[in-house]
Amino acid sequence: GRRFPSTYTTDYGKRGMTLEEELNESNTYYELHGLAVVHKKPTPIRIVKVDYPKRSAAVIKEAYFSTASTTDYNGVYQGHYLDFDAKETRNKSSFPLKNFHQHQIDHMRACMTQGGICFAIIKFVTRQEIYLYPAAKLFACWDAQETGGRKSVPYADIAEQGILITPELQLPVPYLKAVDQLL
Amino acid sequence: GRRFPSTYTTDYGKRGMTLEEELNESNTYYELHGLAVVHKKPTPIRIVKVDYPKRSAAVIKEAYFSTASTTDYNGVYQGHYLDFDAKETRNKSSFPLKNFHQHQIDHMRACMTQGGICFAIIKFVTRQEIYLYPAAKLFACWDAQETGGRKSVPYADIAEQGILITPELQLPVPYLKAVDQLL
Ligand SMILES: [Mg+2]
Ligand SMILES: [Mg+2]
Repeated sequence: GRRFPSTYTTDYGKRGMTLEEELNESNTYYELHGLAVVHKKPTPIRIVKVDYPKRSAAVIKEAYFSTASTTDYNGVYQGHYLDFDAKETRNKSSFPLKNFHQHQIDHMRACMTQGGICFAIIKFVTRQEIYLYPAAKLFACWDAQETGGRKSVPYADIAEQGILITPELQLPVPYLKAVDQLL
Repeated sequence: GRRFPSTYTTDYGKRGMTLEEELNESNTYYELHGLAVVHKKPTPIRIVKVDYPKRSAAVIKEAYFSTASTTDYNGVYQGHYLDFDAKETRNKSSFPLKNFHQHQIDHMRACMTQGGICFAIIKFVTRQEIYLYPAAKLFACWDAQETGGRKSVPYADIAEQGILITPELQLPVPYLKAVDQLL
């Protein structure tokens, strides 16, 4: 058994916060200042076995990570429903589409049909650049794969069609500024 | 260790679906028919120990249920952000406010400030009646506790101020009809 702290990360090395941590911190800032209410959904877990010890909390003894059927983040911003996923890549020249799953794309499409604002937050880790990439652009690239299109989105396209998000004091990912440009 | 299936319930006896199951089924119906995209958030779990066996999936060996910081359900409906919690009571004459936590109330308040539509879905199990109860009414009862008010909302008040939700074929909790009356 390996022990790890409550916020753990995959394998991004020791270079400060992960994108998820940066977003959580930004969302806390936004909520404290009454600007938006956006949360990361808990990781879905399939529970198999639970112990109920006397006089103490239930302990989950066997469980498995399951695949999320939606995106990681949603919430409300000035009357708008926001829905997005955050992805990091160490790739310098392109963003591999395999970072997304079909059900996440389907979910964002369904949310857009209902009038929601959907996008990806993509961080190029080696460049230390974060972009908001609108869902409509993502869908176009995703669908093109089926007809022989690229399996990744070139960095240049994301830099051009996306909106660069520049860190601010107390606000590692001020993405609402970028959202304002979508409205 | 006690084993239990992936959808388990607290202690509501063997009387068909729980409110949560009824809502999940309703949400699936709504999404399949392109009417709304609403999901239950996964139960938040604090993971302490994980095993990574060779050639098979990671196994969570020690974890604990943690308290949700938000409500259970949110999503988007015709451009509106929806946010709600579902509560069952076996109590016949009133709904005990201890079913809510301060952070859930705070969360709904913050969502309403952002223009979201917030409410509780309350099921009186022994009556087999389900109501949509608007968040504004809930807040009033909640706040009144501090100044000597009741610790529960009388059934008659919920029946009068709430909106009765009557099951339909394929749709155990057609709550969007009640939401339409809030808009
Ligand atoms: Mg993600
Ligand atoms: Mg609940």
